[in-house]
Amino acid sequence: MHKVEQPFSFTLEAADGGARAGRIQTGHGEIATPAFMPVGTQATVKTLSPRDLHELGAQIILGNTYHLYLRPGDGLIAEMGGLHKFMSWNGPILTDSGGYQVFSLSERRQLSDGGVIFKSHIDGSQHLFTPDKVVAIQENLGSDIMMPLDHCAPYPSDHGYNVQALERTHRWAVASKLAQSRADQALFGIVQGGTFADLRRESALFLRELDLAGYSIGGLSVGEPKEVMHSMLEECTPLLPEDRPRYLMGVGSPEDLFECVERGIDMFDCVLPTRIARNGAAFVSSGRLNLRNSAMARDERPIQEGCACYTCRNFSRSYLRHLFKAEEILGLHLATIHNVHFLLQLMRDMRSAIIDGTFATFKRSFIDGFRPVDYEVRMRNREARAASLRATK
Amino acid sequence: MHKVEQPFSFTLEAADGGARAGRIQTGHGEIATPAFMPVGTQATVKTLSPRDLHELGAQIILGNTYHLYLRPGDGLIAEMGGLHKFMSWNGPILTDSGGYQVFSLSERRQLSDGGVIFKSHIDGSQHLFTPDKVVAIQENLGSDIMMPLDHCAPYPSDHGYNVQALERTHRWAVASKLAQSRADQALFGIVQGGTFADLRRESALFLRELDLAGYSIGGLSVGEPKEVMHSMLEECTPLLPEDRPRYLMGVGSPEDLFECVERGIDMFDCVLPTRIARNGAAFVSSGRLNLRNSAMARDERPIQEGCACYTCRNFSRSYLRHLFKAEEILGLHLATIHNVHFLLQLMRDMRSAIIDGTFATFKRSFIDGFRPVDYEVRMRNREARAASLRATK
Repeated sequence: MHKVEQPFSFTLEAADGGARAGRIQTGHGEIATPAFMPVGTQATVKTLSPRDLHELGAQIILGNTYHLYLRPGDGLIAEMGGLHKFMSWNGPILTDSGGYQVFSLSERRQLSDGGVIFKSHIDGSQHLFTPDKVVAIQENLGSDIMMPLDHCAPYPSDHGYNVQALERTHRWAVASKLAQSRADQALFGIVQGGTFADLRRESALFLRELDLAGYSIGGLSVGEPKEVMHSMLEECTPLLPEDRPRYLMGVGSPEDLFECVERGIDMFDCVLPTRIARNGAAFVSSGRLNLRNSAMARDERPIQEGCACYTCRNFSRSYLRHLFKAEEILGLHLATIHNVHFLLQLMRDMRSAIIDGTFATFKRSFIDGFRPVDYEVRMRNREARAASLRATK
Repeated sequence: MHKVEQPFSFTLEAADGGARAGRIQTGHGEIATPAFMPVGTQATVKTLSPRDLHELGAQIILGNTYHLYLRPGDGLIAEMGGLHKFMSWNGPILTDSGGYQVFSLSERRQLSDGGVIFKSHIDGSQHLFTPDKVVAIQENLGSDIMMPLDHCAPYPSDHGYNVQALERTHRWAVASKLAQSRADQALFGIVQGGTFADLRRESALFLRELDLAGYSIGGLSVGEPKEVMHSMLEECTPLLPEDRPRYLMGVGSPEDLFECVERGIDMFDCVLPTRIARNGAAFVSSGRLNLRNSAMARDERPIQEGCACYTCRNFSRSYLRHLFKAEEILGLHLATIHNVHFLLQLMRDMRSAIIDGTFATFKRSFIDGFRPVDYEVRMRNREARAASLRATK
């Protein structure tokens, strides 16, 4: 069933411990891995233009099937020539399945083996996602890499629930593969199984048999302790084929990127760099800098000394603080540029270290100086976000 | 009293009827006139970075003394190396006097011949502007062109009130010239006199005697009929020295720019292109396009066929409508780029036409196809804006 015309391929170039360096070929260009994918939920990476993304060295971006299906509609995007042309981004695009958004953004879901009925978070209208329909939507969008509809179990949830969700996810993966009608798009599988080692292994083995173009790992970084996420990766990545890319969905803090690259992940996406930027938080080698802080008022330094991004080459912390205090849009843009650059540069540096065989040393030197935002703060932020999403419905 | 070290000069290069083409030299570069100055109220032209402005061909931008004095403070900006360095804009900057904002944004003013006491629209704190202080603030900012504090009479107001306001404006102009301590900044005068021909003439003659680097015309485009604005310009511009630039404050609609260039104006500023862009309105050769309109949903054309701006070279009306409907910041940015380009290109075309002696023909061909937003709509918008400003206090 593997289509010969498909322009998608993955080449493993180097390994250093579990960490891998490779290259993905797509019909819209090459992606050096490990790679971080900036998130363009609504056909735009928030505050950035395509030329900003090219300048930052972004080699692939993500689009959200759920959001684009609801607005402006995948049919409209197809009429306009597909998502690449619509948003004027000529590089690779990965679209997710919408499954995670259906379960996190919309309420009053009715789930069955056939699919999931949900209400739009925009206008409350009712919609149905089936595996076939989700493939058809992504074919309308014309992304280079598609995800199949999956059932992402909440955390925490019990073994029995996860067995059911996993069986459904696997059936939907098969249906998605059968539904695929375009030869120029790669379909990935999504490994689920919650926090259960047996299910994660079963999922990896099942999807491996399906011979998919790549393998995503879903349902992690959803509230479980870090050690659990790490051990789940350790259960499933060794069972996935070495010659296919592995994509950990929704992960993107600097410390997590190191831990997961070390465990054999090649691709990541996360709204973290763009979202915290719009809240005035900037990544620095020592952790995060709050640009709204009064300590920044007369600070003539850039966000990060030595940083090569447009923001750091041209603007002081003092100016950025002013823009945030005055609620100027330029502040959101400049902070986003810095944060996306920070993560993309980190991935480039990891890749070089893997090729040089110095990944462990590089990781240690970075992590030693880096103070991550702690677990409690992350959980509080997550809850606040969920509450605000509910409030906007 | 004219300081020889001053890097400021104006050269008149061509005239075509009343319309003039010239060049202004400043310590931060040259400005070809007639020129439109994008407004950077809070040390940023809203949604644009300095490199966007350079790409658009902006040769000078405006900063607002009132806003920058209140936030982040002119003292802080001076500590950070001045406004050019603070906002990373290395071209010329003109700062206004704050007078207009004191009279339009702040309430509970106490006006005397010494100056004006007002309350901040941000936090209600009380402040005093005197002619000396306003010069000192602008010296802290380090702008290339400064404005003296003036008393801008409201429209409508009677002859007696305008006589008083004008006498005060003239006294303050003299005080401002005496207060100037830096040799590298040019001080303009502001011609006032409301809608009274005798006062406009008196003001032009008085300020001419003061031998200032340039002459602004204030208190117009504040609600009076267009014919009145035109006749006031016709009263005062012939009395102003030919070898100094003339700046009409707050004017910036395409049709007004033609009428006022024809009447001898060299410089303009207005928030119109940037403000209407953020509301989803784009300048086109036939008038204005509402990017939120449902007719745009499947329109593959750029905002304006043949437009050379980044937005029109890369994005469809369909995509822009989507960005506005989805409330994406990129929409505000892309529409702003187009509108600023539209006005700057219009000024470049006017300048070429003046040099070629074809200004009248060019004006007629543009105005014939252009349908301006009519007076009633403009007045309604103005009132809505004033109400919204009062509400945010």
